[in-house]
Amino acid sequence: MIRAGIVGGTGYTGVELLRILALHAEVEVAVVTSRADAGLKVDALYPSLRGYIDIAFSSPDIETLAHCDVVFFATPNGTAMLMAEQLLARGIKIIDLSADFRLKDAQEWSRWYGMEHACPDLIAEAVYGLPEVNRESIKQANLIACPGCYPTAVQLGFLPLIENGLIDANHLIADVKSGVSGAGRKAELATLMSETGESFKAYAVAGHRHLPEIAQGLTFAAKQPVGLTFVPHLTPMIRGIHATLYGQLFSAAHGKETSLEDLQALYEQRYRHEMFVDVLPLGSHPDTRNVRGSNNCQISIHQPQGKRVLVVLSVIDNLVKGAAGQAIQNMNLLFGLKESEGLKTLALYP
Amino acid sequence: MIRAGIVGGTGYTGVELLRILALHAEVEVAVVTSRADAGLKVDALYPSLRGYIDIAFSSPDIETLAHCDVVFFATPNGTAMLMAEQLLARGIKIIDLSADFRLKDAQEWSRWYGMEHACPDLIAEAVYGLPEVNRESIKQANLIACPGCYPTAVQLGFLPLIENGLIDANHLIADVKSGVSGAGRKAELATLMSETGESFKAYAVAGHRHLPEIAQGLTFAAKQPVGLTFVPHLTPMIRGIHATLYGQLFSAAHGKETSLEDLQALYEQRYRHEMFVDVLPLGSHPDTRNVRGSNNCQISIHQPQGKRVLVVLSVIDNLVKGAAGQAIQNMNLLFGLKESEGLKTLALYP
Amino acid sequence: MIRAGIVGGTGYTGVELLRILALHAEVEVAVVTSRADAGLKVDALYPSLRGYIDIAFSSPDIETLAHCDVVFFATPNGTAMLMAEQLLARGIKIIDLSADFRLKDAQEWSRWYGMEHACPDLIAEAVYGLPEVNRESIKQANLIACPGCYPTAVQLGFLPLIENGLIDANHLIADVKSGVSGAGRKAELATLMSETGESFKAYAVAGHRHLPEIAQGLTFAAKQPVGLTFVPHLTPMIRGIHATLYGQLFSAAHGKETSLEDLQALYEQRYRHEMFVDVLPLGSHPDTRNVRGSNNCQISIHQPQGKRVLVVLSVIDNLVKGAAGQAIQNMNLLFGLKESEGLKTLALYP
Amino acid sequence: MIRAGIVGGTGYTGVELLRILALHAEVEVAVVTSRADAGLKVDALYPSLRGYIDIAFSSPDIETLAHCDVVFFATPNGTAMLMAEQLLARGIKIIDLSADFRLKDAQEWSRWYGMEHACPDLIAEAVYGLPEVNRESIKQANLIACPGCYPTAVQLGFLPLIENGLIDANHLIADVKSGVSGAGRKAELATLMSETGESFKAYAVAGHRHLPEIAQGLTFAAKQPVGLTFVPHLTPMIRGIHATLYGQLFSAAHGKETSLEDLQALYEQRYRHEMFVDVLPLGSHPDTRNVRGSNNCQISIHQPQGKRVLVVLSVIDNLVKGAAGQAIQNMNLLFGLKESEGLKTLALYP
Repeated sequence: MIRAGIVGGTGYTGVELLRILALHAEVEVAVVTSRADAGLKVDALYPSLRGYIDIAFSSPDIETLAHCDVVFFATPNGTAMLMAEQLLARGIKIIDLSADFRLKDAQEWSRWYGMEHACPDLIAEAVYGLPEVNRESIKQANLIACPGCYPTAVQLGFLPLIENGLIDANHLIADVKSGVSGAGRKAELATLMSETGESFKAYAVAGHRHLPEIAQGLTFAAKQPVGLTFVPHLTPMIRGIHATLYGQLFSAAHGKETSLEDLQALYEQRYRHEMFVDVLPLGSHPDTRNVRGSNNCQISIHQPQGKRVLVVLSVIDNLVKGAAGQAIQNMNLLFGLKESEGLKTLALYP
Repeated sequence: MIRAGIVGGTGYTGVELLRILALHAEVEVAVVTSRADAGLKVDALYPSLRGYIDIAFSSPDIETLAHCDVVFFATPNGTAMLMAEQLLARGIKIIDLSADFRLKDAQEWSRWYGMEHACPDLIAEAVYGLPEVNRESIKQANLIACPGCYPTAVQLGFLPLIENGLIDANHLIADVKSGVSGAGRKAELATLMSETGESFKAYAVAGHRHLPEIAQGLTFAAKQPVGLTFVPHLTPMIRGIHATLYGQLFSAAHGKETSLEDLQALYEQRYRHEMFVDVLPLGSHPDTRNVRGSNNCQISIHQPQGKRVLVVLSVIDNLVKGAAGQAIQNMNLLFGLKESEGLKTLALYP
Repeated sequence: MIRAGIVGGTGYTGVELLRILALHAEVEVAVVTSRADAGLKVDALYPSLRGYIDIAFSSPDIETLAHCDVVFFATPNGTAMLMAEQLLARGIKIIDLSADFRLKDAQEWSRWYGMEHACPDLIAEAVYGLPEVNRESIKQANLIACPGCYPTAVQLGFLPLIENGLIDANHLIADVKSGVSGAGRKAELATLMSETGESFKAYAVAGHRHLPEIAQGLTFAAKQPVGLTFVPHLTPMIRGIHATLYGQLFSAAHGKETSLEDLQALYEQRYRHEMFVDVLPLGSHPDTRNVRGSNNCQISIHQPQGKRVLVVLSVIDNLVKGAAGQAIQNMNLLFGLKESEGLKTLALYP
Repeated sequence: MIRAGIVGGTGYTGVELLRILALHAEVEVAVVTSRADAGLKVDALYPSLRGYIDIAFSSPDIETLAHCDVVFFATPNGTAMLMAEQLLARGIKIIDLSADFRLKDAQEWSRWYGMEHACPDLIAEAVYGLPEVNRESIKQANLIACPGCYPTAVQLGFLPLIENGLIDANHLIADVKSGVSGAGRKAELATLMSETGESFKAYAVAGHRHLPEIAQGLTFAAKQPVGLTFVPHLTPMIRGIHATLYGQLFSAAHGKETSLEDLQALYEQRYRHEMFVDVLPLGSHPDTRNVRGSNNCQISIHQPQGKRVLVVLSVIDNLVKGAAGQAIQNMNLLFGLKESEGLKTLALYP
């Protein structure tokens, strides 16, 4: 059995890790830390876990975590980078669900996250944990930087087009909508039900921290810098991300004329062996409820009125494929387990 | 592998059976019927099942169902009773999620359901599928009448008190709140999101069909007729039932003075070996989200201001413990499987 | 024009006072205080008020408020009682939406609210602002204690029965459901959308602060102590309270046999001249959406199966008839205006 | 008093007309028709109107409507065009909330709406009822075609840019999100709460009927054909539309370099005298709740990372500024009343 530790077990990604790991055949949850709730039974805070998780929160110190084979960080940004070196030095694998190791450029990281990076040397070593792009590197990694929720939905949607140079990478638009659990489990006015229920809004249009992460991933895929406009929105539901992506297809003059059917075939081909990316038939509109609670990404493509604008729709559950589920997919790869172990669950519909 | 058929696979209880059975280690879903959608791939209607259910809907005829070991009826009331005899004659087990065989009195059934019963002789043979009451009978049954959603939450909440004669059975009150999926997947004005969202209402106060079913179960437990006021409400959420139950404790003069701690111990004792009924610690308030998607019932008891009114709170997911999950729990018992097979899932929180 | 001040203008009852007063023909909102946001334009915090409220928040000091004719307290409990004497001394009318002056027994107030009362002498002077009971006293008052939201819905529902001695006042049950705005605009985990959306729960079953307030009102109406069990619930919507009330009708042996039609006539008679209490026809089920945003209370009564338990359904908008609307109804009475001035609005449906 | 008739009074736009007209100082609602519910009291179907609307539904025949000064059509598409000529012949003004007279090209109308137009001759006479564009024509009109909900939000957002030729009219993107009330009050599976709650989806990406309407309006403003990609989405709330609009600013080489501050000034200037269009300060994100129940459109503009893509956010209540409120604004213009008569209401927050 793999002994897993979770640092920051009281947030939504932490409790989602617990929900999935509790039923994972190859993992024992050995440690769940919470500075504020140390000593409290985990299932006293989360009655949904009664009967499945029987330990108490402990303090987040290295000695306690040292008995783990793998440590998940489900912490606010800036915590994992303070503990990573000591854990790695003891041979413990790290899967970081925060943003600490996602950006390859430490200075850019500092600009967006408003603090100095504590261990810039480790950044190069970290593998960006998007299995559909980095599967082989993940298997060899010691430190995995799990993608953000928006970046997962947007990259999986754009990748087949970008990798094949079929759209103008200088004019990408990602209009993305998220459920409120993406804002985390924090006592804040802005995410009260009275503030977010029955209402819809955009936010951070001037610049959201997931913008450089998406741009980095698409730049890597395009092998050239990309121009991306990214507008996140808050939608009155708890779980789910829906990315609506717009790209300009090159014209035939570029020697790249492609029919919608060709593009559909390309998408199906690209994700043929991906068990968690599902390309829907032409004409479909994915619905976030159909991936709620599951690790799936469902994608469909459209070409309205046969014009040059291609519209890609990509949905995930922000807490699963956008966080805890993808982290466990990474863990499975890291430990040579079946990639889907513990993740074969169906969406909760309705 | 047990070959299972589902009659009426397009409603919410039907698709919930599919969600759970798709991952059940001992069951193969062989037939899913829908008169209206025969020929259509199941996962075309329910994209949440893609990759897990690969058959098409078929017509609901006996010959098709004859190859099954067990047939679930997830149909409107009045359908199962028309097909039951023929299936039983072929040695097929029936688990009926509709109300056709729940009431032991065929005439009372007719009054509440507005039609003649098609096979009153089978009623006596049917076993009421509440494992916490009828486990041994269920194991021997050929025809199981699964309890309704309200009756499951209310009976599990009241049973320890009623079985031990601790409250006045003549003055029971059940104030129960349900999510809208309980109304089924039907094109109706009343359950549009614009009609039910952001609003709360009672309905059918004059008399709801689940009243005689609850009364029958409690009468059986009390070994005397009971007086029950049952008020169902519609609450603006999709899944979940919350029963708030009120009973008058007998006074010491009746020689039955019982402290709240004694009652708590009684509840814990009653459900000690029930893996799907969870008595929360004193002082708790169960929350429907903590059982959403799981087969659990969570219960807590309160005695406000130490007075004679005992308040019992009981929550279930109406589609799982209140329908499909309980049906599969019954199937497991019927076929000698582990009772929890396929049902060890955690609630989706948040 | 009446010059109105609002102390505590950033909570939901404060902004609701602004929404209504902005269109009130006889009132000018002169002062809105907020310690934390002093100096900020009110409509910068609440863009819904743009074009209607053009002042900034000011600090809550007596001198600023001294120019007002009436001051509304939309503050947490414990604030109004600290400022009341000084304002009254200057001849300013006070309408307190908090609980400071609701209970007539200062010691009981201290037990439930966990602090000493700062001016117990004023309690006797305060008039409980339920116009349907105290209209004439309100007109003469200097200090009005506006009822809580739950107490408004419950008292209006029970009053006709209690005042006429038709039910057993020792065994009253109030099972009440509230939208989350009742919890106020505070940064708290418990009322995040991720915590309250798609879920239903009871809370404070052991004892809620509105219990003694309801009991006091019903005791006054019954002219005898009452026995009340009050269970509040949180329902996943923003606005609305639905009270489901249970009372035992006296039997004919008590010489009080009353038919449901008689009771209906009694309710209609009791509220015949109340413009904000609407008794629905027999057979109706009021729906909170039908009073959302309006100052109305809609009530219906039921006698399930013709038994002795009478069920009363009573709905209000917790922020209007349960708070700001009722406060303005009181103000209208206090200043000799038309009682409905500023309050003739229809519910927002759907 | 203006005598108003409403044809199709049982849908959401019909009842919203009633909600607003009931309090309109210059209007008496004389007739409300419903073929299915003729004879039924209006407030029996809509208890939210009790005390304000005291008539019954009548059959939709010309004789009954002939006593009106103005008739609103809140009917499905295809009804108004059958009755318009007869009503106009009697000198009755028509305000059509359906799509029958929105498109100037009868053949295009037929393609999108799937039926022949019954009175193509009247199309030229109809005035498109967007007061911010056609105010003077509206005042003289006999037949007003009220804009659709999506077209209102999108046009008001794009107009200042398009009218001034500041963005490339060939590459417009409108990513728009609507609450479910936009789908109307129809018994349909797709808009059940269990189907739309807690989920988000795009729909009709291949082509939505509001596309030609938006394109027609923008073409008129641009004085050249426009290229528009329009993707509508369904968001889990009842009321509200949020348009996120993307346009490519021309570069300085085109002699049109414009700073964001200049653009802000342009927007403020464009709508300076519009009482129902509110340009928020730079940096704002409009929220649909802040216009819920009001006739306002709130707009903000952003230029992410200072690049050439301008992002415009535009929100309305689909049933008010997107339907009934705008219709009444048109009526006010038509009859020479104050344009805001009956429409000075504040949004219901929270």
